[in-house]
Amino acid sequence: MITSPANPKVKRLVRLRSRRHRDSEGAFLIEGYRELTRAVAAGVRIDEIYVCDPLFLGTNEPELVERIMASGARCHRLAPDPFRKAAYRDRPEGLLAVAPQFDTGLERIRLRPDPLLLVMEGIEKPGNLGTMLRAADAAGVSAVVVADPTTDPFNPNVVRASLGCLFTVPLAVSTADGVIRWLAGHGIRALVTTPSTRDLYWSADYSGAVAVVVGSEQYGLSETWLDGRFPMARIPMAGSADSLNAATAAALVLFEALRQRTAADGLLPKW
Amino acid sequence: MITSPANPKVKRLVRLRSRRHRDSEGAFLIEGYRELTRAVAAGVRIDEIYVCDPLFLGTNEPELVERIMASGARCHRLAPDPFRKAAYRDRPEGLLAVAPQFDTGLERIRLRPDPLLLVMEGIEKPGNLGTMLRAADAAGVSAVVVADPTTDPFNPNVVRASLGCLFTVPLAVSTADGVIRWLAGHGIRALVTTPSTRDLYWSADYSGAVAVVVGSEQYGLSETWLDGRFPMARIPMAGSADSLNAATAAALVLFEALRQRTAADGLLPKW
Repeated sequence: MITSPANPKVKRLVRLRSRRHRDSEGAFLIEGYRELTRAVAAGVRIDEIYVCDPLFLGTNEPELVERIMASGARCHRLAPDPFRKAAYRDRPEGLLAVAPQFDTGLERIRLRPDPLLLVMEGIEKPGNLGTMLRAADAAGVSAVVVADPTTDPFNPNVVRASLGCLFTVPLAVSTADGVIRWLAGHGIRALVTTPSTRDLYWSADYSGAVAVVVGSEQYGLSETWLDGRFPMARIPMAGSADSLNAATAAALVLFEALRQRTAADGLLPKW
Repeated sequence: MITSPANPKVKRLVRLRSRRHRDSEGAFLIEGYRELTRAVAAGVRIDEIYVCDPLFLGTNEPELVERIMASGARCHRLAPDPFRKAAYRDRPEGLLAVAPQFDTGLERIRLRPDPLLLVMEGIEKPGNLGTMLRAADAAGVSAVVVADPTTDPFNPNVVRASLGCLFTVPLAVSTADGVIRWLAGHGIRALVTTPSTRDLYWSADYSGAVAVVVGSEQYGLSETWLDGRFPMARIPMAGSADSLNAATAAALVLFEALRQRTAADGLLPKW
């Protein structure tokens, strides 16, 4: 039982919030019951689990801890004070794990026929990346590809905002040029979202193999995507503001694709 | 020029981040160039403006400060250290104002014929309320009504996440029963969003006077809305997760309404 917030294990968990330490260790943090449940269900390997029973919110946590330990993870018990120090959440739930970073190469993506994909370029805020993963999961996309991100997908706020959908949606990271070559190689059309077109997103065609491409919060898409090679679509702005939250914008276009691809009987497609 | 972070004016600005102090003063904070620009354009009265020139990001800030001063606001100049203390943003832009809280009674809402409204119940996170206001503005809604909120609309994070759309969309706060009576009195149909129905949101009818009703992040809508009086619609979940971010969900339904209400020529309606 770790009782001191000054314990070196606690300090290392705090360090794993920074990208430098995550990348040098090749590890990342997964905090929370729902997030860990989704990680385990998706077959993510857990190396260590840090547990603080008095902070559990429900009654299913011990079973989850046992499953994670049975898979070979080392378990450490913490008193509430050191756990609160180690946790990155304001209201920690008593579960914090360390997992090895998984491969995010494009070559690991396996596609079904006629896939729907989300490509995001240059995303800056981990919370937006996580919220987009959650929306992508809900829209049933086959994979999410991140081009030239400013944030890394193993940021604790990605795990948190995605509610664990980082583990349910296949994710790859590459450069914009790498993504464009990969899409072409797989016969996937790109539909780029930008305010610089008159075509509305609900008038676009989302049939077949298609990737919805959204840009960063501040700058939108780079010129690479806007040189005329790809059809464009914009989200209409009917009020005073000139833009939407990036995750909201991605969700709107993905669900319009889902609407068009869903059969008249309401049965959802699976890609 | 205020040079000390211990200055009582700086301490009071910090206190205004808490609801208790906001409500006892009847005031709230507006920080940032875009947010203040939208507030001024919407005719929001500004009592005081706190300015730190070295933190300006652009060149239009002095003109905005002059306009705000010309409207009768007192202006205080701050050195960077006290400004950073007073600002609630991580990267302050050198502009922070104090404004009187405005009336959020339902009776202040003026409606056009066939309005589209957003009603949200029990919203907890100010960031979600702000993001919903931004989406509501973009979808061209006539007004946003908040029923029994846990957060108050004058929370600095509402202003921030709304990017100033708190000032561009008419906003009212009431109880669920008060909202239901008000909708009925104005002949506005309520369409409630819930996972407890088979009807998909894109199959619902958004013509005429209609209010889209969304629930809180944790608990969804209360029984008041789900007793069968109102038609229901759900957002399909095509992946592993069982819910979407509340602001994303609201945006999806509002933009489906906008899609259905937009003429075939793509000309956006105005309510």
